[in-house]
Amino acid sequence: MDGYIANKNGGLDWLHSIPNPDQNDMGYESFIKHIDALVMGRTTFETVCNFDIDWPYSKPVFVLSRTLEAIPEKYEDKAELVKDSLTNILKEINQRGYSRLYIDGGATIQSFLKEDLIDELIITTIPILLGGGALLFSELPEELEFKHVESKVFLDEIVQNHYQRKR
Amino acid sequence: MDGYIANKNGGLDWLHSIPNPDQNDMGYESFIKHIDALVMGRTTFETVCNFDIDWPYSKPVFVLSRTLEAIPEKYEDKAELVKDSLTNILKEINQRGYSRLYIDGGATIQSFLKEDLIDELIITTIPILLGGGALLFSELPEELEFKHVESKVFLDEIVQNHYQRKR
Repeated sequence: MDGYIANKNGGLDWLHSIPNPDQNDMGYESFIKHIDALVMGRTTFETVCNFDIDWPYSKPVFVLSRTLEAIPEKYEDKAELVKDSLTNILKEINQRGYSRLYIDGGATIQSFLKEDLIDELIITTIPILLGGGALLFSELPEELEFKHVESKVFLDEIVQNHYQRKR
Repeated sequence: MDGYIANKNGGLDWLHSIPNPDQNDMGYESFIKHIDALVMGRTTFETVCNFDIDWPYSKPVFVLSRTLEAIPEKYEDKAELVKDSLTNILKEINQRGYSRLYIDGGATIQSFLKEDLIDELIITTIPILLGGGALLFSELPEELEFKHVESKVFLDEIVQNHYQRKR
């Protein structure tokens, strides 16, 4: 609720603090079907690589990084490294036929927002104040207005709001 | 949406960015009927004093301030200055028969949250990213879990979430 997406120790356990016995995916599968590719930052990529699960994405993944030299061999057929300005990266990805992009990771979302490159926001809120950690949003050069599309409540506890950029 | 409650210039105009021709009060009147008194910080008090409207509150107002010497004469019958620790202030206000308190103002809400003195949160979100300014939430000494009570959408644009502290 206070805008943090990882707690003070970088922890994500709070994401599973609401009991979900029937594994309600809160729209995730239908959202993923709807997109062409993912764009994520290095931190998110490495976090996913370190999850104790199989590679979770069924769509191409582009990893933004200035520091990473190459995608580890194990993930070479899953993810592709991109290094350029966001507008150039988007141009290239779009030209390759991927137009609906899921942008993930705090720093990456922030970079895209700073250049007003986000068309839709789906924000899922768990009723906890983490009180510190990594923030979803950061300072922007200008205010950005959105339009509310819909709100859903999952598991009686989790609120998901869908917004569209007003242009 | 990004947690700011005043923009980079302290401005509150964005609060009125959604057209509201029928002056929907989004539950405000019924909420105010339901409370016994308000507790607000000096900044909020002075902001309200400077509004170009009559005094807007029908319930007693307690103003928290370390720096204010006295409530200006014009507001002496409306507001009362309190200077003490939050727990002592609450004890005194409660003993005087006011138990349902509306806590207002960013810094004041933050102080109450830091001492885990908030039982309910009603957060109303306008679909705009301000990208800077005064934040509603701040760092906390510990995580605070809440329970989702209800979500409402007003004017097709404004989402209001009601949460209760899990104790």
